Amino acid sequence: MKLLIAIVQDKDASRLSNDFIENDIRATRLSTTGGFLKSGNTTFMIGIDEERIDEVLSLIRESSHTRQQFMTPPVNLDAQLDSTSSYPIEVQVGGATVFVVPVEQFHQF
Amino acid sequence: MKLLIAIVQDKDASRLSNDFIENDIRATRLSTTGGFLKSGNTTFMIGIDEERIDEVLSLIRESSHTRQQFMTPPVNLDAQLDSTSSYPIEVQVGGATVFVVPVEQFHQF
Amino acid sequence: MKLLIAIVQDKDASRLSNDFIENDIRATRLSTTGGFLKSGNTTFMIGIDEERIDEVLSLIRESSHTRQQFMTPPVNLDAQLDSTSSYPIEVQVGGATVFVVPVEQFHQF
Ligand code: NI
Ligand code: NI
Ligand code: NI
Repeated sequence: MKLLIAIVQDKDASRLSNDFIENDIRATRLSTTGGFLKSGNTTFMIGIDEERIDEVLSLIRESSHTRQQFMTPPVNLDAQLDSTSSYPIEVQVGGATVFVVPVEQFHQF
Repeated sequence: MKLLIAIVQDKDASRLSNDFIENDIRATRLSTTGGFLKSGNTTFMIGIDEERIDEVLSLIRESSHTRQQFMTPPVNLDAQLDSTSSYPIEVQVGGATVFVVPVEQFHQF
Repeated sequence: MKLLIAIVQDKDASRLSNDFIENDIRATRLSTTGGFLKSGNTTFMIGIDEERIDEVLSLIRESSHTRQQFMTPPVNLDAQLDSTSSYPIEVQVGGATVFVVPVEQFHQF
């Protein structure tokens, strides 16, 4: 048994949470802020048998890894629009940080 | 010194919190959701000397273990009542998950 | 790599958070209550290389250690004021509790 502590962006948390449920992985969710990721983030605590660590890591990487995304910046109605203002720009989203911590005892009551 | 991370149901958290205070056990409380337990839950982080682990585990088991409880389902006024609808039914409540994690250094400033 | 879990008073959390940013220390912030400290508190989770632990501990001690502070108690307008009621009194503020937990794996995706 290990304890995985995974910090992901809020926008990736729901998909990851569903992935955990589908794969019968029990994760407790904490609302957290700042630090490892710029915007609001979510921390999952996951108790998991050693042989399933790689499976959990794959799910986290799959749903939450850093990636480029195109978004259209909001149009600023107060400013004189220059011709580029409504073009999509590439931004980095996602990112996950995971700690694997040893567990000396695990109990369920 | 060990770090106990205990996840209990919200409805059991207040009693457990009082038990910790009465027994001079310092627990920090986090509001958490999902995963180990279906409904809203509460996570306690407890720093404790090795020789008191069993005492803390007993308090958690005592206040928060899985148990059957009778509850009367709410009457559905819109439906045609069948004769069993207001009988108490047995539901499972409670449940606790506890991780004991090693601590390499402990500081109080 | 170690995981530091630091619990400080809410009033000390903003300064400490800034100290972490200035020193390029990534800390994830959790809103917590009770236990180690009487009033509202904040927990930071910090992943840090072993050789920087003392630096992080110094920042926490510097911003959050227990100290005496003078405060003027609020004047009670309903009561008959006795002559001492608006004198400043000395109160204890601050305090930090830190756990250093081993990390077996650390991943960033
Ligand atoms: Ni991808
Ligand atoms: Ni019982
Ligand atoms: Ni000082």
